[in-house]
Amino acid sequence: MNVYIISMGMSKIGKRKESSKELFFEALTEALQGVDPRDIDAVYVGVQSETYEHQIMYGSLVSEYGGLLFREAYRVEACAASGALALHTAYMAVRSGVARVALAVGVEKMTARGTEEVTDALMAASDYVLDQLNGITIPAHYAMLATRYMRLYGATEEDLCAVAVKNHENASLNPKAHFQKRITLEECLRSRPVARPLKVMDSAPISDGAAVALVAGEDVARKLTDTPVRILASTVVADTLSISQRPDPLWPRAVWEAAARAYRQAGIGPRDVGIAEVHDAFTINEILMYEALGFAERGKGHLLVREGETQRGGRIPVNVSGGLKARGHPVGATGLAQIYELYLHLTGRAGRRQVNARYGLALNEGGVNSTAVAHILAI
Amino acid sequence: MNVYIISMGMSKIGKRKESSKELFFEALTEALQGVDPRDIDAVYVGVQSETYEHQIMYGSLVSEYGGLLFREAYRVEACAASGALALHTAYMAVRSGVARVALAVGVEKMTARGTEEVTDALMAASDYVLDQLNGITIPAHYAMLATRYMRLYGATEEDLCAVAVKNHENASLNPKAHFQKRITLEECLRSRPVARPLKVMDSAPISDGAAVALVAGEDVARKLTDTPVRILASTVVADTLSISQRPDPLWPRAVWEAAARAYRQAGIGPRDVGIAEVHDAFTINEILMYEALGFAERGKGHLLVREGETQRGGRIPVNVSGGLKARGHPVGATGLAQIYELYLHLTGRAGRRQVNARYGLALNEGGVNSTAVAHILAI
Repeated sequence: MNVYIISMGMSKIGKRKESSKELFFEALTEALQGVDPRDIDAVYVGVQSETYEHQIMYGSLVSEYGGLLFREAYRVEACAASGALALHTAYMAVRSGVARVALAVGVEKMTARGTEEVTDALMAASDYVLDQLNGITIPAHYAMLATRYMRLYGATEEDLCAVAVKNHENASLNPKAHFQKRITLEECLRSRPVARPLKVMDSAPISDGAAVALVAGEDVARKLTDTPVRILASTVVADTLSISQRPDPLWPRAVWEAAARAYRQAGIGPRDVGIAEVHDAFTINEILMYEALGFAERGKGHLLVREGETQRGGRIPVNVSGGLKARGHPVGATGLAQIYELYLHLTGRAGRRQVNARYGLALNEGGVNSTAVAHILAI
Repeated sequence: MNVYIISMGMSKIGKRKESSKELFFEALTEALQGVDPRDIDAVYVGVQSETYEHQIMYGSLVSEYGGLLFREAYRVEACAASGALALHTAYMAVRSGVARVALAVGVEKMTARGTEEVTDALMAASDYVLDQLNGITIPAHYAMLATRYMRLYGATEEDLCAVAVKNHENASLNPKAHFQKRITLEECLRSRPVARPLKVMDSAPISDGAAVALVAGEDVARKLTDTPVRILASTVVADTLSISQRPDPLWPRAVWEAAARAYRQAGIGPRDVGIAEVHDAFTINEILMYEALGFAERGKGHLLVREGETQRGGRIPVNVSGGLKARGHPVGATGLAQIYELYLHLTGRAGRRQVNARYGLALNEGGVNSTAVAHILAI
């Protein structure tokens, strides 16, 4: 059965005063334009952590607040991949006949907590015994990858910062992005270190936000919208939790496997992708993803950004939304924020940053590329 | 497509020294007798809280530890309903064609934390604004329901304790139960109050444990086992998070709706159920469930246990495993522990507590009957 996204919505991302359920409602309101909420019969919610709002049971919580009670509803989680997992679960629900119309939700309210609390909550995404007990934070993991990558392939801190500069430039055209301001290479290079060689400007911010997608089969989709976006592929792959257990830590195998399976499902290859949103939690990871997604050869990802190929107007525009870096990174919402960006472009609604494409790819991951979720969408 | 449970496993429940992944492995080892792990292509894990082990990303964690890497894997959560949600997600994965064989996992490691920490982690299952800020713990919620039920329908503390006595008697025949000892009505009535009128002996214990189920379509199931157990129905329904928002707090509507839809899917009624496992987190809830599942009329649930109808050998044996009360309540594992009990009886492997039945029903819930998951199994 073919499965479609029939509508989407996303809140403004940033430091927001609202709670999760209010951010969800902002996104839902946008998505319900032209859709009757009575048609929705399942709700899947991606949320990273119970610590930010001292809350679990987000299925019941958002169902109640959205006027969607007595449907099937529950939470899915693989840290920062939770949003895309909500979409994947909605996709399975529709394909299996469990739901005719399913709502995928991603939401996170993080800024009510301090940076230390957030760092601690994110650290739970690494192996307690192998990594947490050694005090290795998530930024430290990515810093190790960056150090090794630079040493092996001759990439520079300028190459890493070039990712941030590109993504901020894109976000300057995205009214819902956390940051709308451009940054210079100099500003990035001079910004405060987080975990060397990674600096603040190499790192995604702590954000609040929500995004939702309505998913349905072909018959329902054609009835409810003139611009259904087809989910050509939806794949999930889990690697080890600790990068210490991987034969080659610089090779994000889960990302590669998820992408390879998605290309196979969709019947397309990397060269067919017209626009991509990838998981730049730290700049180094956008570069690693270029390689695992087949956009660049191994060890040459940094050249792609150096040569401007992933800019808007380049060969393969990546993170036109601004990416996690500049659109913002409300962890549980990020996967669906990526999908929202593709949805806007494929349906011709991306305004000043519009990229015309037939196929869009989103790669959302949790942990340190420990669980990867790939989606390929087509108009 | 018809979906079957082809194999199951469960760890010993209790105060265990092992971590989640080790408890999972104990359950997996039992389930893999006669099954090749290479056949498994998806893993869904029900876990309640990240606070017990300071860990999220259980999809990657258990996949790695179980030798099941590079499959689809992620966590599902609706507090104590998480285990049954793992089975429901596996059911959707098989029905949708996303997986040929899916592994549902439920696991929780709770006893490394103190009672106060566990109470706090469970409290996150109630509405932060409406209930947590008022200091209403989960036991206090059920105590309010018990008080109201006793007042309206003339039930007594003896009726509540009769549930505990029955469930402990059942658990005395279950070698994997947290408690194997019988209790008397007197012992229950005299036990320490938790939230009046509920006492320690009305309350499920804090337990560690894991349970797993392997799920497949008909063709695969017939190849791998001689005793496939069919999942006739798998339903999930979400009610409000706060009982304060329900027109009739004594009517667990999510439970009723989940059961009604499950009966419809299965084409059977309450009278056809030969054995049931229900969510007796507190004794009052087993009585409320009798009514919502159609085993008793409204206001007469307590008479069912008073008259011995839900004992082994009664008209409709309930919680032959010992229930949450005596088999134990490792929160994320509980839903699959219920399914494990039905599986043993339907396949004739329940030993001294064997109940011969054609249809089994399991009702797992999260919050205060906020999200209900019903399964009907048949041999």
